[in-house]
Amino acid sequence: MLRVEVAPDSLFGPENMPYGVFAPPGESFRVGVRLGDMVLDLAALLGDPVFARPDLNAFLATGPARWGAVRARLRELADTALPVEVVHPVRSVRMALPVTIGDYVDFYASIDHATNLGRLFRPDSEPLLPNWRHLPVGYHGRAGTVVVSGTPVIRPQGQRRTDSGAPEFGPSQRLDIEAELGFVVGTGSTLGVPVGVDDFAAHVFGVALVNDWSARDIQAWEYQPLGPFLGKSFATSLSAWVTPLAALEQARVPLPTQEPEPLPYLRGTADHGLDIDLAVSWNGHVVSRPPYARMYWSPAQMLAHLTANGASIRPGDLYASGTISGPEPTQRGSFIELSWGGTEPITVGEETRTFLTDGDDVTITATAPGTAGRRIGLGEVSGRILSARSAP
Amino acid sequence: MLRVEVAPDSLFGPENMPYGVFAPPGESFRVGVRLGDMVLDLAALLGDPVFARPDLNAFLATGPARWGAVRARLRELADTALPVEVVHPVRSVRMALPVTIGDYVDFYASIDHATNLGRLFRPDSEPLLPNWRHLPVGYHGRAGTVVVSGTPVIRPQGQRRTDSGAPEFGPSQRLDIEAELGFVVGTGSTLGVPVGVDDFAAHVFGVALVNDWSARDIQAWEYQPLGPFLGKSFATSLSAWVTPLAALEQARVPLPTQEPEPLPYLRGTADHGLDIDLAVSWNGHVVSRPPYARMYWSPAQMLAHLTANGASIRPGDLYASGTISGPEPTQRGSFIELSWGGTEPITVGEETRTFLTDGDDVTITATAPGTAGRRIGLGEVSGRILSARSAP
Repeated sequence: MLRVEVAPDSLFGPENMPYGVFAPPGESFRVGVRLGDMVLDLAALLGDPVFARPDLNAFLATGPARWGAVRARLRELADTALPVEVVHPVRSVRMALPVTIGDYVDFYASIDHATNLGRLFRPDSEPLLPNWRHLPVGYHGRAGTVVVSGTPVIRPQGQRRTDSGAPEFGPSQRLDIEAELGFVVGTGSTLGVPVGVDDFAAHVFGVALVNDWSARDIQAWEYQPLGPFLGKSFATSLSAWVTPLAALEQARVPLPTQEPEPLPYLRGTADHGLDIDLAVSWNGHVVSRPPYARMYWSPAQMLAHLTANGASIRPGDLYASGTISGPEPTQRGSFIELSWGGTEPITVGEETRTFLTDGDDVTITATAPGTAGRRIGLGEVSGRILSARSAP
Repeated sequence: MLRVEVAPDSLFGPENMPYGVFAPPGESFRVGVRLGDMVLDLAALLGDPVFARPDLNAFLATGPARWGAVRARLRELADTALPVEVVHPVRSVRMALPVTIGDYVDFYASIDHATNLGRLFRPDSEPLLPNWRHLPVGYHGRAGTVVVSGTPVIRPQGQRRTDSGAPEFGPSQRLDIEAELGFVVGTGSTLGVPVGVDDFAAHVFGVALVNDWSARDIQAWEYQPLGPFLGKSFATSLSAWVTPLAALEQARVPLPTQEPEPLPYLRGTADHGLDIDLAVSWNGHVVSRPPYARMYWSPAQMLAHLTANGASIRPGDLYASGTISGPEPTQRGSFIELSWGGTEPITVGEETRTFLTDGDDVTITATAPGTAGRRIGLGEVSGRILSARSAP
């Protein structure tokens, strides 16, 4: 038996305990929770086969009562001696995508980001389109190309506009990131029956970090009139750890003022924002600190909107906030904003950058308030850019 | 033992034999092929457990060589007496969605449809946007709300623009269809490795009919700048039968002239169109006959484009052509085109219509050339509109 010692300033103390899918050396993937620098093997610890699978989906489908009961039991066990075979050092295990994602939706919920992109993409018109303050704008992304943190990203090729008017095909020259928060759906819903704002916690299990890699040159040429497609679908990275909503009670903050008042289906009595601080590191240098607390639309409003037309959700669905940018230049969650469309290079250590260069590493981390002045960590989402394949 | 008698003019003779997922009364779903008015239970007939599952995915993943071998064996067996327990009348069985869909992509490949919608949605500018003739425009739809033919469709609610400028929320008043062809991915690909135009038949298993129900008022308000979302995601109907590409050899036709010449990654030596004739019935009255042979972008070009950035595909992925409209008014595949934005009501039997009324039925059917002057059927995709739920 052994007791997991957790440093007082650990971001992964017993009030966090995020879920992930891990494999000990030479063994298969299964569900675990992180405690300090260790991973607890839940199937072995709790004897429940729902945790013996290589994704969280079966556990997610069990619903909030079961999530709460498991969390309470783990809080108890965290203070006790545990069988040595259920404890694995984080550094020794491989991590897989935590969920098998059914549908992936990406929103556009930061007013500062939407304003910045409006200025850059449509310089001659109002930056915010007329619908933006009335609904959380969103679109479907490609679920099959969501990859776990650490997976390298091959620079995508595609069509881009040229000065001649005819497009050319080649490696993206404006490869970017989008620092986002992702929301993992636990329990599904019935086709035809919307999920109300106040039902958020009955359906959403937890929060993860997302990097929605974006090829801005491909996106700019393709996106009219049906939205982003190949400029996004080559890869989206997801953190390996999913922090349950139950760990984020201390992070609840009021939403910023919404003006005009949203329509009734977007209003709820329990709606709130989340005080989560992100940091974007480029080749090891922090270049931005986006504040999630400034997001205009709440996670509950996004879910209510997503389902307002009767669309159903399934365990393992993922929806993301869209790029998180604050009002300050140092709070922008994408490089197209940080470099203002590539016109103002950024200092990255000893070098300068506008968009991503082959070999670059990007790591996004985040923390949130815990109890007694402590903080909890949302892990990280990282990726390195590999050079494009030779032309097909 | 019994021999399946197939009428000489049957659309489901031995040269067709589409695949579907069916359940005999009181039994579970499994894979079958249709022959005349009968369904053959493939797990029972061939003794292969790949067909005992409630979707085609495992069989799709086996690849073209196995698809060909099974088809050849079924062609032989179709002429022989079969054990009575493997044969079920089509009218006695229930049908399920034939595939578990990973990602669903919808294209916009008809030049007549794109031109009509450009005129209706953007009357003051060029109907075709600058990118349209250079790439097959597409976007991701919601895989989790694809339903099998026959599933009722609840009228969606959502936000729509009003004359005051502020939106209102309520049942869609411009509920429409889109008559499309869907392509079912068989074998997957590797992330980072594009699928070339000439690799189409190595990856795509077959063809089905799609009705991409569309709420035009919701869509018009929401779609800038990230494309269609809730105007589409409430339901997409898919035919129960998937016709293998191998049954469509006689339907191959040259593509219409593409001007300007597409970029090299969209050109192939074996690329072709498909001479498939659709018919759209509204409450039992044929209101349109869209010709698939007129589609500008080929199915192989759509797949090459979808993967050109390295996006991977999975068995069971679905991509659809977008609305099929021909150049004649009687060949338009959506009601917004047939009624010209609701301004020119259509005669439907004894009544007139612009958009869908509660209780309306829509059925889309299609046929293609077979050998010796025969035709093969692609089954049907049908749905009835149910009234909206009361406000949430």
